[in-house]
Amino acid sequence: MSTEPTLADVFNETPYKVAGHGSRDVQVLKQALESFDGSLNSDMYGKGKLIEDFQDKLANILGKESAVFFPSGTMAQQIALRIWCDRQGNRKVAYHPLCHLEIHEEDGLKELHHIEPVLLADSDRLINLDDVLHMDDDIACLLLELPQREIGGQLPDYKELEAISAYCREKGIKLHLDGARLFEIVPYYEKSAAEICSLFDSVYVSFYKGIGGIAGAILAGEKAFTEESKIWKRRHGGDLISLYPYILSSDYYYDLRVGRMGQYYEEAKELAAYFNRCTAAASLPLTPVSNMFHVHFELPKEKMEPVLKALYQETGVGLVGYLNENSNGGCSSEISIGDRYANIPKETLKKAFQVLDEKLTELKSS
Amino acid sequence: MSTEPTLADVFNETPYKVAGHGSRDVQVLKQALESFDGSLNSDMYGKGKLIEDFQDKLANILGKESAVFFPSGTMAQQIALRIWCDRQGNRKVAYHPLCHLEIHEEDGLKELHHIEPVLLADSDRLINLDDVLHMDDDIACLLLELPQREIGGQLPDYKELEAISAYCREKGIKLHLDGARLFEIVPYYEKSAAEICSLFDSVYVSFYKGIGGIAGAILAGEKAFTEESKIWKRRHGGDLISLYPYILSSDYYYDLRVGRMGQYYEEAKELAAYFNRCTAAASLPLTPVSNMFHVHFELPKEKMEPVLKALYQETGVGLVGYLNENSNGGCSSEISIGDRYANIPKETLKKAFQVLDEKLTELKSS
Repeated sequence: MSTEPTLADVFNETPYKVAGHGSRDVQVLKQALESFDGSLNSDMYGKGKLIEDFQDKLANILGKESAVFFPSGTMAQQIALRIWCDRQGNRKVAYHPLCHLEIHEEDGLKELHHIEPVLLADSDRLINLDDVLHMDDDIACLLLELPQREIGGQLPDYKELEAISAYCREKGIKLHLDGARLFEIVPYYEKSAAEICSLFDSVYVSFYKGIGGIAGAILAGEKAFTEESKIWKRRHGGDLISLYPYILSSDYYYDLRVGRMGQYYEEAKELAAYFNRCTAAASLPLTPVSNMFHVHFELPKEKMEPVLKALYQETGVGLVGYLNENSNGGCSSEISIGDRYANIPKETLKKAFQVLDEKLTELKSS
Repeated sequence: MSTEPTLADVFNETPYKVAGHGSRDVQVLKQALESFDGSLNSDMYGKGKLIEDFQDKLANILGKESAVFFPSGTMAQQIALRIWCDRQGNRKVAYHPLCHLEIHEEDGLKELHHIEPVLLADSDRLINLDDVLHMDDDIACLLLELPQREIGGQLPDYKELEAISAYCREKGIKLHLDGARLFEIVPYYEKSAAEICSLFDSVYVSFYKGIGGIAGAILAGEKAFTEESKIWKRRHGGDLISLYPYILSSDYYYDLRVGRMGQYYEEAKELAAYFNRCTAAASLPLTPVSNMFHVHFELPKEKMEPVLKALYQETGVGLVGYLNENSNGGCSSEISIGDRYANIPKETLKKAFQVLDEKLTELKSS
């Protein structure tokens, strides 16, 4: 009895995957550790040169007074919002309906911190200035995610961002940046990370998205804020005796890849254009503003899967490893460009999209 | 201007430290990773062969249906108590006044879970059956720490432990084991880890105490309990995309050292006896029941520090790296035996204690 291979199985076998840096395997850590001496002392419960140097480096990059390394963004962001709520004496925060805290954290913010979120904007569009100006509720803090991942990684105009920031400052609303993919948007905004962060009171950045590290996050802001965050980090169980496996790999891959974000962004635009030239396929956003976008197919998942599997086997190019069903009857997937894209021969990629277009055209007309 | 070196400085320079396995440096991780192939796939948000195999291995060792890997014991134990409290519809738990949750976690249990601890026994002694029988409060769960670290690593008689367990079962009180040092007490009790754990409903074990890993913990119990713990792990921000740096090192050092616990225990008894033969020094407990004990000096910290510094420089033996002031005017420190002890030449150790005794005798009579 042979089982039909899944889309993921066939995808995993392809030599040319368009997204990502490479396999998330143990070699990723081994490679990072090679550049550090074995005699380097571990951090100890948030203290020591190893962790403090990296925190100082990131505080400087983000243009903030102070920074704290966390094992996860989930932990860092709940804590950021908790501190702002406590300061403001107000348990309400506002964020997008598809905010990470709302859909990926098993309601930790509500269950552990008893914070009540106010959902701004609709699921399928960005929060805009109007949404902020016309909030019904008094809130302690507004969280903005740049880029907004769950809608393909969209960004507001920088002017709109500045206006939202100015309004929040005027009204005494704290502004927090979910900057999981902050470094990835620097090329589009043509602003430094520190310039973007200057619009926010607190900032979280991740090291395993575009940076491609193992795990880990930085939370940055004023010293009084980050010091308070360390107390909550201990309460959450995140003040580990040793965080260095994550810190060293974050440091190594930050240095390796932060300068490549412009390249990933250009490649994302190129790849999105390939999809947009195909029948019944489109990228969201139409022109990417970072290294990421979503690809939407008009055809349903069960029709797309055999097409993609055949394509992968025929061309060796792996486009996406999974498909989500969409409410409009089509399906979609997420693509984040990393080191892999540049290794695909141009002709191979071109050929793959030729084949995809032919197959989709045939399928649509059948 | 030269600064006087601290006790820690002089201790760190000694070639023969009596406690621990070695420096907590990056080499500890490098060594562990050497035995794993780079192509091994990362765990992904708590899933995948790498994490599941280790969880199964530990469930089996602890004699429990299921086990979950956590980044820290702080996270694992708060979650265990939360689950039992929710199940019992009762927000009270009982534990020792020097329980880790009470003194080392910035009140995470109270601040995040609103659980009210009932403190059993006095700070300077173990919880006994009588304490449990005569609790004033209805509690959801009793936490026992074996060995009780903050009083030198003491243990109740196994019969008393069995009686406490039987009483809790009879009364429907959940019994949780803080087994941060569980493997370290197996030689004294002459019971397997699974036999000891069979007295408890839930168990936490650590991998960076006697095992000497980087960080990480296992929480074990019935499947329904561990599945619920995974939801809370995500809420706490502990469900990292990759926990493998801790899992692989836990696995490696578990295999390397779990069989040495009997040796460490014998060495701890030997070292404690050395201290007990010195003037104005004593171990707590007088005869260790694991690889750890506390050493108490009758003389105050400011008198002991110069004595120890001189001793370290003279003999090359490092006894303790810090001293805590005690309320009785003396001072004390903690010692946990690991791989280092066996590497100290017997004559060197004997000589060090001869010198210590001479210095203490001289000082006491001065």
